[in-house]
Amino acid sequence: MQTISIPSKQDIEKAHRLIEPFVHYTSVLTSQTFDAMFGSRFFFKCENFQKAGAFKSRGAVNAVFSLTDNEAAKGVATHSSGNHAQALARAAKLRGVKAYIVMPENAPQVKVDAVKGYGADITFCEPTLKAREETLKQVVKRTGAVEIHPYDKFEIVAGQATAAKELLQEYPDLDLILAPVGGGGLLAGTALAAKYFSDKAKVIACEPAGADDAYRSFKAGYIIPSENPDTIADGLLTSLGVLNFEIIKDEVTDVVTVSEDSIKKAMKLIWERMKIIIEPSSAVPFAAVLENKIEVRNKKAGIIISGGNVDVDRAV
Amino acid sequence: MQTISIPSKQDIEKAHRLIEPFVHYTSVLTSQTFDAMFGSRFFFKCENFQKAGAFKSRGAVNAVFSLTDNEAAKGVATHSSGNHAQALARAAKLRGVKAYIVMPENAPQVKVDAVKGYGADITFCEPTLKAREETLKQVVKRTGAVEIHPYDKFEIVAGQATAAKELLQEYPDLDLILAPVGGGGLLAGTALAAKYFSDKAKVIACEPAGADDAYRSFKAGYIIPSENPDTIADGLLTSLGVLNFEIIKDEVTDVVTVSEDSIKKAMKLIWERMKIIIEPSSAVPFAAVLENKIEVRNKKAGIIISGGNVDVDRAV
Repeated sequence: MQTISIPSKQDIEKAHRLIEPFVHYTSVLTSQTFDAMFGSRFFFKCENFQKAGAFKSRGAVNAVFSLTDNEAAKGVATHSSGNHAQALARAAKLRGVKAYIVMPENAPQVKVDAVKGYGADITFCEPTLKAREETLKQVVKRTGAVEIHPYDKFEIVAGQATAAKELLQEYPDLDLILAPVGGGGLLAGTALAAKYFSDKAKVIACEPAGADDAYRSFKAGYIIPSENPDTIADGLLTSLGVLNFEIIKDEVTDVVTVSEDSIKKAMKLIWERMKIIIEPSSAVPFAAVLENKIEVRNKKAGIIISGGNVDVDRAV
Repeated sequence: MQTISIPSKQDIEKAHRLIEPFVHYTSVLTSQTFDAMFGSRFFFKCENFQKAGAFKSRGAVNAVFSLTDNEAAKGVATHSSGNHAQALARAAKLRGVKAYIVMPENAPQVKVDAVKGYGADITFCEPTLKAREETLKQVVKRTGAVEIHPYDKFEIVAGQATAAKELLQEYPDLDLILAPVGGGGLLAGTALAAKYFSDKAKVIACEPAGADDAYRSFKAGYIIPSENPDTIADGLLTSLGVLNFEIIKDEVTDVVTVSEDSIKKAMKLIWERMKIIIEPSSAVPFAAVLENKIEVRNKKAGIIISGGNVDVDRAV
């Protein structure tokens, strides 16, 4: 039986020291309008302002800089069409090693360009999970690069935990922290940060009803992978990782789901009222507040805004 | 001959103390991407995060709270379809007096709702400057309210100056400050702040070519009002005020104009790269940078992001 190693408080502190020179200590924004609407106090941790536009930079930098020189020498590799691709390409560039990114051939040009901009080597494949995994396997075999999984990995979870750690350093008396869940890297990291750096903050996971594998897995007590997930929150289509679920099932208080309409409404409200660009995945926790799925009245609630990489073309 | 009174350093410091409890000390954001693009260092003063979504809250609060109890007793009035209407309605509510706002009958519902939300009394009129001014005259006559002009007013200029004052307090060694110009309240205030609170910062005004009355007035040395201005930057359609021009002609280093295409491109770039919502008027200074109208290389340039009130409906 394989033992699963879970990041300790010291692992997260070490990750924070390691990534500090390479990522932003992001702002926390508040909104009196939203506070008044719900009789609550909200604290939005703005990872949309993070390097490469998402929290993914934290885990990617931690993973790449945790490698020995020997391990890193032949580069790093992953398959991703989203924020992890950019974050890993950037982290590899910072370390001065090669990044090999497998992307589906239908990936948006803007994301392809961003990854190329960091000097990564891109291999295109058919847009299926099977093709992505097989192509990655070939790339790793050919290059000797180290695979960096986007979420199901010790160093990734420890890195993502630093967002909630910063939030709790600034606001130690939060009652709640709300985070979106896709593969579970951010959620697991957030849950560990709450465990280690807060006396009372409960972590609530928020998930699109159209991609509710975390909800169903949490209730069942074992991993139930997504089947044909469908949501505008394109960062949350993936299924829970094994390490992530191990942490989530013990450290997360609840998982709630929200409708697509609420996600769109929450995203628009945050754009309009807070004047910040967030991607649909980032709107999922506030959508849960709008749906009254979480008791926030008279509570201090941190909300992790996971990223801001969204196509704004239609807006201008 | 009428003497024009110009706010002194002490007037601006007094304004700042007066408005401090009622407005945000807004964040300054930076962008390594933009810095690298131009070999410059940019400091974006984010008045899009300001109360009521724009710098206008500064001048409006200063104007309303500078009134004696006697003067304020019968309320305040203005005509505006834009940010000044919201800012004045909010300031009046804070002071506990009535606000009478004359709005054109084609004003966007979202702006009407925002003004109503602050409890203001709205009078609709035909959407012409003449109808707006005449209707306001009647409202003032009927109610005894004090008219608060949106920009051509001592207290308004002193209030708007506090944005650049804050920016210079945080970054005292700026070489340049770039600000958009419409009626000139923000620009005149910015120029005075640079004069009083910096040893070297030069102020460059940035204006849409489609509403270039400040450019033409600055070059001519006397006010040449706008004729049929047309620009996406709807906050900059107004012509320079008399007080404002008096300050601008002496304290502003240059006025440059930009195309509509550049404004749209700058706005989109800032949305995408900085992850903040800004209105088209706020994109005008960065548009001037994109057009190479301003020498920014190896310089530290402050940019006033004037507001974030834009219809994001088309984006979601």
